[in-house]
Amino acid sequence: MSAWLLPDHIADVLPSEARHIEELRRLLLDTARSYGYELVIPPMIEHLESLLTGTGEALGLQTFKLVDQLSGRSLGLRADTTPQVARIDAHLLGRKGITRLAYCGPVLHVRPERAHGTREPLQLGAELYGHAGREADLEILSLALDCLRAASVDNLSVDLADARIVKSLLAGIPLEEAALHDVHAALAAKDESELAQLTRDFPPSARKGLLALVQLYGDENILAEAQKRLEPSEAMQAALSDLKWLAARLEGVKTTFDLADLRGYAYYSGTRFSVFSQSAGDALLRGGRYDGVGAVFGHKLDRDRPAVGFSMDLKQIVRAAPTLALKTAIRAPWSDAPGLRAAVASLRGRGETVVCALPGDESEIDEFHCDRELKEVAGQWVVQAAEEGRTS
Amino acid sequence: MSAWLLPDHIADVLPSEARHIEELRRLLLDTARSYGYELVIPPMIEHLESLLTGTGEALGLQTFKLVDQLSGRSLGLRADTTPQVARIDAHLLGRKGITRLAYCGPVLHVRPERAHGTREPLQLGAELYGHAGREADLEILSLALDCLRAASVDNLSVDLADARIVKSLLAGIPLEEAALHDVHAALAAKDESELAQLTRDFPPSARKGLLALVQLYGDENILAEAQKRLEPSEAMQAALSDLKWLAARLEGVKTTFDLADLRGYAYYSGTRFSVFSQSAGDALLRGGRYDGVGAVFGHKLDRDRPAVGFSMDLKQIVRAAPTLALKTAIRAPWSDAPGLRAAVASLRGRGETVVCALPGDESEIDEFHCDRELKEVAGQWVVQAAEEGRTS
Repeated sequence: MSAWLLPDHIADVLPSEARHIEELRRLLLDTARSYGYELVIPPMIEHLESLLTGTGEALGLQTFKLVDQLSGRSLGLRADTTPQVARIDAHLLGRKGITRLAYCGPVLHVRPERAHGTREPLQLGAELYGHAGREADLEILSLALDCLRAASVDNLSVDLADARIVKSLLAGIPLEEAALHDVHAALAAKDESELAQLTRDFPPSARKGLLALVQLYGDENILAEAQKRLEPSEAMQAALSDLKWLAARLEGVKTTFDLADLRGYAYYSGTRFSVFSQSAGDALLRGGRYDGVGAVFGHKLDRDRPAVGFSMDLKQIVRAAPTLALKTAIRAPWSDAPGLRAAVASLRGRGETVVCALPGDESEIDEFHCDRELKEVAGQWVVQAAEEGRTS
Repeated sequence: MSAWLLPDHIADVLPSEARHIEELRRLLLDTARSYGYELVIPPMIEHLESLLTGTGEALGLQTFKLVDQLSGRSLGLRADTTPQVARIDAHLLGRKGITRLAYCGPVLHVRPERAHGTREPLQLGAELYGHAGREADLEILSLALDCLRAASVDNLSVDLADARIVKSLLAGIPLEEAALHDVHAALAAKDESELAQLTRDFPPSARKGLLALVQLYGDENILAEAQKRLEPSEAMQAALSDLKWLAARLEGVKTTFDLADLRGYAYYSGTRFSVFSQSAGDALLRGGRYDGVGAVFGHKLDRDRPAVGFSMDLKQIVRAAPTLALKTAIRAPWSDAPGLRAAVASLRGRGETVVCALPGDESEIDEFHCDRELKEVAGQWVVQAAEEGRTS
């Protein structure tokens, strides 16, 4: 087997796409910063129990394991950055009030999440800690939308859900973890017959509510219908009211609701959202409220912090974003001629790309679109339009 | 043991340092781009033999191993990006002429390289493929110095070496790999008595040369002394001439020579350099020529490409760079008041950081230095200097 074949679902990012990803990275981190979100850089590897505590089984299955030769302990390669950032909020910063954090870096998955997906998403996200109110949910969702707008992804639509609805319906019903998993899977697949089978011994009102959920997706009329069909508990009432409040503030964005939606990791505890674009089939980002995660790290310090955030994969976003314009460059000769190095340095300092033709390779630098060249004219270095036939 | 303790030599990067690292990342990648270096993003994991082919034993010992559940094969977590970029040049791009590539991302080491070092450097580097001449060495070294200048690291000095010198002295002497390793280690440690012991059966001229090398470090007079004491072969003569030529073109930078220097990975084949600053004890970056690495990947395509490059750890550079100025922000209230959201969006669009005080947490946002606040005055939203006592 050739030494240069990469593992399945692992790929190099080559220059034109890498430049675009780098540009998106900057635009999106700058957007988060303009909202007051501070960048943090958690490590790629941690002790396994630190990475996985409180995050559920699915994340554990997605996490590569390795051994620390210094300590003999098990390490995990992060599959999700959110629990790491919750740990930073709970332990390292230890602030009393609101903390806003952002991050961007690779995560690794044991298996791809989609048929042609990558096992190495470049995860970018933002998290807000210390505020339990829907105003925080709105801020995070607004930032998520502004990030996609900054990336020039258009025709955005938001799908809203709330983890409290299913939780309310299942409250008080004793269930094995495997059985709970099956119910969640049937809801996610909107598989009514499977759900009818799984819930046949449930109390009638819970069963009726769960079966109704499968049809409760669509526009805002769904919220009124849920009021009628679900016999809402207090927590469910709060969830429906928060969804309505949020949707009313998402100006100019098509909003739908899917009350059975449970996709993604198990740590979500309240409002949830997915953002779609017409130019991509899958959700471009997901987020929501996960008030429980920090508590696992913070029990000694009484750091049970409310939290809401989102994350996305820049490798997916770059495909939904319009192509970048070609960036042009200036070709320069190579010599020890007086003034040449200073002229090149000055152009570079002004933001230009100046590619020097090294001796013997003068014809070979047209991988860059050099539309201009640096030439000596009467003892002076000047930039001129490139000659015909040498522009790539 | 607490779930939030990180493994030894692994750490989170917190906001103020993370912001500085992000700023350096941008400045340095933009500097590389201004020279015509295109960004690539190789993966964090690869098949082990792909990561390690042709790179020497030291890199193998530094590489974390894991198992691919999809294929059952051994994977490695990259410990160095250079061999990956050589693979990209040889196989994916397959260009005939010069290729200039840059990269920035984490690498992981089984053990720290220094007593208090990190096991997760953030490696940034640039590589030039397809040109065997010293002009390419000079371009890479100039770019390396311009990167450190862009990071405002001052009092730079360059230490030059050349792998051809030791290789020439050892040419024709049959040596086990372990014995060669010992000779290299004694040279690196400048351990004259150990070296005398190890070379006692070597041909007299090689032995004399190797023992002389231990003292051949210092300013440019070293080059003339080497001419006298080493009985230079043709390859050694070329190395000495290239070092002199390079040093003459490094304007305004103190240059020293260390002809016994062999630090770093084993793939170097020609000119080598380390850059130091008065504000840091260790070298801030290392680089040089490594013409052999791409050949391993390229044998079928006749892609034995000359290569020269450098790399550095941004986590080390950030400590040698002067502290960033505090960035200020504007505090805004939270309400549904007309015009407020538009005013906030407009300020953010102009590059300002606007932090909204969420309901119930008005006093808690001073983690940011909010020197101004957004207020409603006679129906108009205006930015004013922050009130006393609320500025952090």
